[in-house]
Amino acid sequence: MFFNVKTTEEVLGLVKGFEPAGHEEVPLSEAFGRVLSGDMVSPEDLPGFLRSTVDGYAIRARDSFGATESLPAFLEIAGEVKMGEVPSAVAGSGKAVKIPTGGMLPRGADSVVMIEYCHLLDESTLEISRTVSPQENVIQPDDDFKAGALVLSGGRRLRPQDVGVLAGLGLTSASVRRVPKVAIVSTGDEVIPVDQTPKPGQVRDMNTYTLGAFCRREHAVAVPMGLCGDRYEDLLALVKKGLENADTVWVSGGSSVGTRDLTLKVFESLEGMELLVHGISISPGKPTIIARAGRKALFGLPGHVASAMVVAEIFLRPFLAALSGEGDWGKKDRDAVKARLARNVESVSGRDDFIRVRLVKDGEGWVAEPIFGKSGLISTLVEADGLMQIGRNTEGVYEGDTVEVVMLR
Amino acid sequence: MFFNVKTTEEVLGLVKGFEPAGHEEVPLSEAFGRVLSGDMVSPEDLPGFLRSTVDGYAIRARDSFGATESLPAFLEIAGEVKMGEVPSAVAGSGKAVKIPTGGMLPRGADSVVMIEYCHLLDESTLEISRTVSPQENVIQPDDDFKAGALVLSGGRRLRPQDVGVLAGLGLTSASVRRVPKVAIVSTGDEVIPVDQTPKPGQVRDMNTYTLGAFCRREHAVAVPMGLCGDRYEDLLALVKKGLENADTVWVSGGSSVGTRDLTLKVFESLEGMELLVHGISISPGKPTIIARAGRKALFGLPGHVASAMVVAEIFLRPFLAALSGEGDWGKKDRDAVKARLARNVESVSGRDDFIRVRLVKDGEGWVAEPIFGKSGLISTLVEADGLMQIGRNTEGVYEGDTVEVVMLR
Repeated sequence: MFFNVKTTEEVLGLVKGFEPAGHEEVPLSEAFGRVLSGDMVSPEDLPGFLRSTVDGYAIRARDSFGATESLPAFLEIAGEVKMGEVPSAVAGSGKAVKIPTGGMLPRGADSVVMIEYCHLLDESTLEISRTVSPQENVIQPDDDFKAGALVLSGGRRLRPQDVGVLAGLGLTSASVRRVPKVAIVSTGDEVIPVDQTPKPGQVRDMNTYTLGAFCRREHAVAVPMGLCGDRYEDLLALVKKGLENADTVWVSGGSSVGTRDLTLKVFESLEGMELLVHGISISPGKPTIIARAGRKALFGLPGHVASAMVVAEIFLRPFLAALSGEGDWGKKDRDAVKARLARNVESVSGRDDFIRVRLVKDGEGWVAEPIFGKSGLISTLVEADGLMQIGRNTEGVYEGDTVEVVMLR
Repeated sequence: MFFNVKTTEEVLGLVKGFEPAGHEEVPLSEAFGRVLSGDMVSPEDLPGFLRSTVDGYAIRARDSFGATESLPAFLEIAGEVKMGEVPSAVAGSGKAVKIPTGGMLPRGADSVVMIEYCHLLDESTLEISRTVSPQENVIQPDDDFKAGALVLSGGRRLRPQDVGVLAGLGLTSASVRRVPKVAIVSTGDEVIPVDQTPKPGQVRDMNTYTLGAFCRREHAVAVPMGLCGDRYEDLLALVKKGLENADTVWVSGGSSVGTRDLTLKVFESLEGMELLVHGISISPGKPTIIARAGRKALFGLPGHVASAMVVAEIFLRPFLAALSGEGDWGKKDRDAVKARLARNVESVSGRDDFIRVRLVKDGEGWVAEPIFGKSGLISTLVEADGLMQIGRNTEGVYEGDTVEVVMLR
């Protein structure tokens, strides 16, 4: 039945191989959270002029040499720097110019004495009680970025400060990867719309909402294709429509052999379809199907929402990162939190187990409490803070062991 | 000058004391990432009927007692369960009914034998080679949630599975906290719009974009109020407009004493204004002003974007969490990553230092490499993965020490 069962690592390798969906230009105000499509090089020096980092007096450092509290140096005050303007006053040769933080250094000055070390003797005479070095308390014209320097690499997901630096460089828009579109089909004769009251034997459609919110969290756009009964023609039509309207199609439902076979049959009937995965050696989530039609991936996800979400966290997250062109996906495993295990957990050899855990603060660290429950229950996932992986070559983990927990955000 | 300087803990206490902004009803498809305004109680049992968790045959467990491979039990096949329907066939008294995963158990059945242990002798005779217990492979009608049970607590930020469970319970909308609105005023005579070319002495407005993206990341809406020169009347007018249009006003700019005093003067001229903080014993970010006008908070942030962002990460993040009504803010410190410090870092006693660090993977763990650079530089923040705090009672941390790094996302 599972002639194409793959390991976690094999499946991760496959899903990470899909190509980004394309790119587009967006205004800077909408660039946060988007992925840069190419390297961003500084068109100019930043900040572009010699700037003070403190409030004080701009001087030629040499004029302060030897100054101490007991033997101060005296300088003539030659004017004041105004913010945003090129100073007209000139420093050096025993002259000091008053300057605010961020002000442009006047000609002749190479450093700034902090106001704390300055004392006005009269309107035009400054006493300084400290020696400053050349370049002290100043930012060079290219201290932030030199013209031509690499500012941000392609594949980076823009953070607030990254958007800020693009603003600083005068870029009013950014070339970013297109947001992947995900067609979601929820199947099953028992599944009814959320606003209906289920008769005995029926359940409301949780998967469209859960997977839709998951897409949103992962910077993708969900395209809900609606519900689909367990009929070949209906499912085929919806999957084809999904392929036309989205970058990938996720069919959820089908934890029974019959419905799983139906999803497989539909995938197999698509032109140029290549079956990549028919079962993954994990629990929960084993009955997952992955296929490729052209450049697009098709997923057959378990019908139990909790199982589907484990597959989403472990495989669809890196898949969407690949589709988003996010080069530094690897950084994401920083999300894993180290915790001490609260009790022994047995595991079956030959498969990776993903155990839902609750995290409880314990002094400096975290304790991971396993949540047991049938994979058909969504309540276990609602209670869980994260997932803990038990490798397939391990027969279990023990109370007190340090484990890595991937956060469910 | 800093007559109201507070510690990190004092300021955190103050900012967390602000009240949520209100609440509203949103459709379930838009509920992801929003904060529940009140407890959510299950209106009904979920799943609501006795369900099979496997493919197999529904039986009365008693009919399998004693069955083994060498001594199987024989049952009469009385029909098949169809998904989404109340089964018409009846199990028990030696009768078995075929059932798919997720199907509703027929009358008379209390358990399901997995298909793996079933063998068809002929069309109507089933051989089973294993004993099952009552309730084996079934989900009870209230296994997920009992009617009246607490499903999600108020103050929770909804994750994908939380949205999923609301769908499962038939809730087509959710009552959530209103998203806080943040008026952002960027001040300084030297600051020009992003699309203009700075003359010497001028810089482009990075703060509006950086803080705006920060708001978006923290589930708030930025209301950019535009640029403002260092003039009392202009700033007062913008701050008043901000108070009318938003839940909080953030004035960025003013790292020089003169502009800082201007912001303070504007805050002080507002009716009913209470100055909460005038300086925080941290670096960078010391010249931060916090005031309260009625129920709304006003912040005077440092003009250097890197300093402003440190204040944002440390104080504005929990502030926005309070404004969002997010009760479980404490959980967020799970974001802190433990890392080994790459080199000694000195610190000044009496203030908390926030050091920008780069994280580098090293075997199982992370190494934190401090990034030094003037706080006026945004490049240090673009390079940084996180912030490391050195407490004010510490004179430094040493190479090899384990430190906590708050991620800059």
